[in-house]
Amino acid sequence: MSTGTLYGVGLGPGAQDLMSVRADRLIRSAKHVAFFRKAGRSGQARRIVEGMLPSSAIEFPMEYPVTTEIPLSDPAYNETLSAFYAQCTAHVKGLLDAGEDVVALCEGDPFFYGSFMHLYTRLKDDVPVEVVPAITGMSGAWTATGMPVTWGDDVLSVLMGTLPEDALVTHMRNADALVVMKIGRNITKIRNALERAGRFDAAWLVEFATMEGQTVTKLSEAEGKVTPYFSIIIVHGQGRRP
Amino acid sequence: MSTGTLYGVGLGPGAQDLMSVRADRLIRSAKHVAFFRKAGRSGQARRIVEGMLPSSAIEFPMEYPVTTEIPLSDPAYNETLSAFYAQCTAHVKGLLDAGEDVVALCEGDPFFYGSFMHLYTRLKDDVPVEVVPAITGMSGAWTATGMPVTWGDDVLSVLMGTLPEDALVTHMRNADALVVMKIGRNITKIRNALERAGRFDAAWLVEFATMEGQTVTKLSEAEGKVTPYFSIIIVHGQGRRP
Repeated sequence: MSTGTLYGVGLGPGAQDLMSVRADRLIRSAKHVAFFRKAGRSGQARRIVEGMLPSSAIEFPMEYPVTTEIPLSDPAYNETLSAFYAQCTAHVKGLLDAGEDVVALCEGDPFFYGSFMHLYTRLKDDVPVEVVPAITGMSGAWTATGMPVTWGDDVLSVLMGTLPEDALVTHMRNADALVVMKIGRNITKIRNALERAGRFDAAWLVEFATMEGQTVTKLSEAEGKVTPYFSIIIVHGQGRRP
Repeated sequence: MSTGTLYGVGLGPGAQDLMSVRADRLIRSAKHVAFFRKAGRSGQARRIVEGMLPSSAIEFPMEYPVTTEIPLSDPAYNETLSAFYAQCTAHVKGLLDAGEDVVALCEGDPFFYGSFMHLYTRLKDDVPVEVVPAITGMSGAWTATGMPVTWGDDVLSVLMGTLPEDALVTHMRNADALVVMKIGRNITKIRNALERAGRFDAAWLVEFATMEGQTVTKLSEAEGKVTPYFSIIIVHGQGRRP
């Protein structure tokens, strides 16, 4: 019996018809489906494929033991997550060793931030793995703004809202186009950094890009708005154009 | 009679089954198809959809009057391209005004560099336009390397090889993960910049990502290699991971 294959399937920004044809086929014929989610939630990845899975598909939700309850800087955070990824890896490897293929659902693109990479690095040397790239969440977001994000020689920098404010300011000053992800509780710090870098007035906030409930707002008009962790801020480049 | 719709359809990195389901449907049912190409070439966008267009589809190839024959800094470059885009716009607008839908084929993602934006900005206020985001070429490239490109709080910067060497060096030093596009004749300058920034040994060169002929080479082992303009250099981030 041959070992199964782990498919790391990018789902894209959220709209089902923005999945790739390859992802669509793998999901609609999946026997085993693994996905990460916060405990007690349905999970964004699982929601995106609602109605696409065969009724016979066996689901393996992988529930984070911790999200923001322990600070990133606490060694307990890494230890807890590390044990969790080891558990998930063992379960998936058991299926693969038994000859079953497993489709791991990944929001956005599997190799661009996200959690799949933690399974991937633990399994890639031992079992066949295929990664299906996808439309990134940021691509869904800049498309939603109705304005191209980069022109000519523009430099685009992608920044996580979890970075320290001073680091954000430096990068915001140096790049032409900006994407800021992981917003949520970091919104005030990000607003301050954009103001200090002189980029605040050009910033757009996109929530639920490509999905039901999509909103596109100038950040300067979103004062006091509570926004989800997965919303995205875009500052468009203004490079060369004939 | 109502005005037709211009669809700016991202084709993704090159493999047909990495197009989105939405793009696949639009292309397979297209009546009018517009795409840019270098004069005398079949054109990468057109090649990607080979075999997908209905036999009845009417094609409108838009051939650049100039690519590298005039330096970017020469005002004649902008004037020539500007007149070209005006011509293309007039032709497409004629079709839309006659009630016909037009599918514009865009390599990669329509709003991430590329030429479609020049049509888009000239038409968006006068006719209905829908943009279909896509998997970027860089996403195809980092997937091909078999290594995640960004982890945790990594900063990703996307740089064009057409930038001056000193600017490249500064950005290469400041970011964690790097993507360099528009390689071709800029390869020596890019190699020098990566060496000065201390990133050369970690750089990968990807040619024809996701397509026939795909190659993935450590840049340090690609000495003297002539590489196409559309190849992509990747330096992976090494951020936080449990």
